[in-house]
Amino acid sequence: MHDKLREHIEKIVPLSDDEFSFVCTHFSIKKFKKHQFLIQEGEVAKHAYFVVSGLLKLVYTDDTAKEHIVSFAMEDWWESDYYAYFTQTKATMSLECVENTQVLCLSYEDYKKLCDSLQKMERFFLEKANFGFVGAQRRIISWLTSNAKERYDQLLKQYPALIQRVPKSLLAAYLGVSRETLSRLAP
Amino acid sequence: MHDKLREHIEKIVPLSDDEFSFVCTHFSIKKFKKHQFLIQEGEVAKHAYFVVSGLLKLVYTDDTAKEHIVSFAMEDWWESDYYAYFTQTKATMSLECVENTQVLCLSYEDYKKLCDSLQKMERFFLEKANFGFVGAQRRIISWLTSNAKERYDQLLKQYPALIQRVPKSLLAAYLGVSRETLSRLAP
Repeated sequence: MHDKLREHIEKIVPLSDDEFSFVCTHFSIKKFKKHQFLIQEGEVAKHAYFVVSGLLKLVYTDDTAKEHIVSFAMEDWWESDYYAYFTQTKATMSLECVENTQVLCLSYEDYKKLCDSLQKMERFFLEKANFGFVGAQRRIISWLTSNAKERYDQLLKQYPALIQRVPKSLLAAYLGVSRETLSRLAP
Repeated sequence: MHDKLREHIEKIVPLSDDEFSFVCTHFSIKKFKKHQFLIQEGEVAKHAYFVVSGLLKLVYTDDTAKEHIVSFAMEDWWESDYYAYFTQTKATMSLECVENTQVLCLSYEDYKKLCDSLQKMERFFLEKANFGFVGAQRRIISWLTSNAKERYDQLLKQYPALIQRVPKSLLAAYLGVSRETLSRLAP
């Protein structure tokens, strides 16, 4: 299970066996079942999660109780309510399992310890954060320039494996369209 | 001019005078006039920019030659076509002056050197990247949950100083509405 983490980190920074053992002491393993919550809105977001297997959805619920999907996270992706995580405040989003999911959990305290004690890991997180920002910016551009059909096609092209695993109702909540509209776009 | 940079960095990490002098050797000062380009679409994005004074717009031009504003940057903000910057590839966006603007320029080479040689600066960039990501995520949530009027009101509340300086036509291109629609929302 930790092998996946090592492979993932070493795409950015090489680690010696000792360094990787040290990194591992900061993570704990957890299993969640489909529909279980990793983060509940209103509770402090204590952990960031590296997905070993399974699929998560990060959900923002608006004032009318409508659910909007901010992002999905499958194998090798990281997820949390990052604002709440970095400020150690109450989550405004919830993080839930779409499938049974295994994650490696990193508390904010351990994240800081890792960055303080191993510059390679700070470099790793910097790279992830930079490309996370770039990915979010691309999604904004997609909203600015594309209609729902085009956004669906972009998602299909970029993440074909993800789309096959996500129920249509959730895909609609991610694309910001109704379930009926999505059925017309992706029959 | 560099004082502003020091104040900005020290909101996150304290620097000794020697450390700050070392940081400064990685930046160059440049002045641009209103309507000038800092980054042209199709050219390699060599620099990231820290805005000392003035106002910039990051623009994505679609296939129909329509301009979409991805973000603005005023005093104390950083801007670039970050995907192109981090990968040192050709920009897909342009960065232009909305007002006469003074910037401190950081080449990608110097960014890497700074991170390699001073862990405090890597920490600084990590914090900026994390909150940059969080900011972009909030804008995505705003698109998912709000109509144009609500997005305008959120922007007004979050950045009142910015809205006063940005021409209405550019604000419309940022909010993803026509100039006419914006006039109805913000008479």
